[in-house]
Amino acid sequence: MTNKKGATIEQLIEQVIDFRDARDWQQFHNPKDLAISLSLEASELLENFQWKTSEEAVKEKEKEIIDELADVFIYTMMLAHELDIDLTDAVTKKLEKNQVKYPVDKAKGSRKKYGEL
Amino acid sequence: MTNKKGATIEQLIEQVIDFRDARDWQQFHNPKDLAISLSLEASELLENFQWKTSEEAVKEKEKEIIDELADVFIYTMMLAHELDIDLTDAVTKKLEKNQVKYPVDKAKGSRKKYGEL
Amino acid sequence: MTNKKGATIEQLIEQVIDFRDARDWQQFHNPKDLAISLSLEASELLENFQWKTSEEAVKEKEKEIIDELADVFIYTMMLAHELDIDLTDAVTKKLEKNQVKYPVDKAKGSRKKYGEL
Amino acid sequence: MTNKKGATIEQLIEQVIDFRDARDWQQFHNPKDLAISLSLEASELLENFQWKTSEEAVKEKEKEIIDELADVFIYTMMLAHELDIDLTDAVTKKLEKNQVKYPVDKAKGSRKKYGEL
Repeated sequence: MTNKKGATIEQLIEQVIDFRDARDWQQFHNPKDLAISLSLEASELLENFQWKTSEEAVKEKEKEIIDELADVFIYTMMLAHELDIDLTDAVTKKLEKNQVKYPVDKAKGSRKKYGEL
Repeated sequence: MTNKKGATIEQLIEQVIDFRDARDWQQFHNPKDLAISLSLEASELLENFQWKTSEEAVKEKEKEIIDELADVFIYTMMLAHELDIDLTDAVTKKLEKNQVKYPVDKAKGSRKKYGEL
Repeated sequence: MTNKKGATIEQLIEQVIDFRDARDWQQFHNPKDLAISLSLEASELLENFQWKTSEEAVKEKEKEIIDELADVFIYTMMLAHELDIDLTDAVTKKLEKNQVKYPVDKAKGSRKKYGEL
Repeated sequence: MTNKKGATIEQLIEQVIDFRDARDWQQFHNPKDLAISLSLEASELLENFQWKTSEEAVKEKEKEIIDELADVFIYTMMLAHELDIDLTDAVTKKLEKNQVKYPVDKAKGSRKKYGEL
């Protein structure tokens, strides 16, 4: 495998699925357990920030953060693949929904949830 | 915004950051709170599978699952952008590490963690 | 320390706080990091169920499950102590709220959320 | 239900199980979904701290924090009941293990994990 700068998500998903299939892991990868796995990896990422400021975490745990963020992304792609979800399309449509929930004139500079705006 | 089939991750990140900057939200987006947010979105995704089989969840909650997976990916990209992490590179390198932790001959067909193989 | 069957929560909290103070850890235990820690421990508990049925998990990982559930409870008590929350009172009041959200005649035998009942 | 100051955990669990059984919910409460639920509630608790300092969160979201912490504790008790785990005993034994992992002379004033001490 080589670094493919500017790879499309589809190309990355192919790498991830090749890895999975070489190990015959699809049998375990039902959507519910993939969603559990994604949540676990997000927690492992967060663990690097426990008891620390952002600055301390980034300084002391940069490599671990990169690795865990990669794991989160890997499971995101696996679940998308399993459910036949087009991630590019999903993100684009979600941003469109968020534009309605968080209109610029109300949301600008605010950290409130849309229900509180 | 239009659906950009085959978009690179860099192009998607640009969309996400434009959305953020239009709302002046970078001030809140320190890495620690982004890692918290990623974990929260992964939980919201998982919530769609609570008390259900994979099949029931996908049937009853497909739209919600797509939206929440998009949110997970959006925060993954925001955190990567904030920490200047190249996601394509991070995934490629993580898969290489996982090849060592989970060699095909030992890991094939097994759901054990690498420490138990 | 000895097993105190039938201990009140206040007595258990005292044990937990003694443990903390002997290590001079209160300085790190701000509520936000305690909430993060609670979430991390809940994930470590959940990890024992990853890729498994309930039955497999309980059979293969019983000791780990007990330990992680204890950790969840320990952080629950630490956060309650830090914020001066009476857990007995909080649970009693939450159950009263839930009786309104999930009235027996509507919720009986249903796994729906209160918004869907 | 009345506030039982100084209640034992067993008494609280009885309240929680009565609530569950009145709704005939035991059929859904397999250990895996209870572990998922516990993780989800811990995330809902953490959500109150998102984008905020501890002080801001406690000031703006005190009631929500109390309610979510109660939910975490309720699911902790449900899972303990389902698996026949004595929480008092589990906490006492876990603190004993932690005394070995975090001896006072090494752990005092340090936020390091036991593997790093």
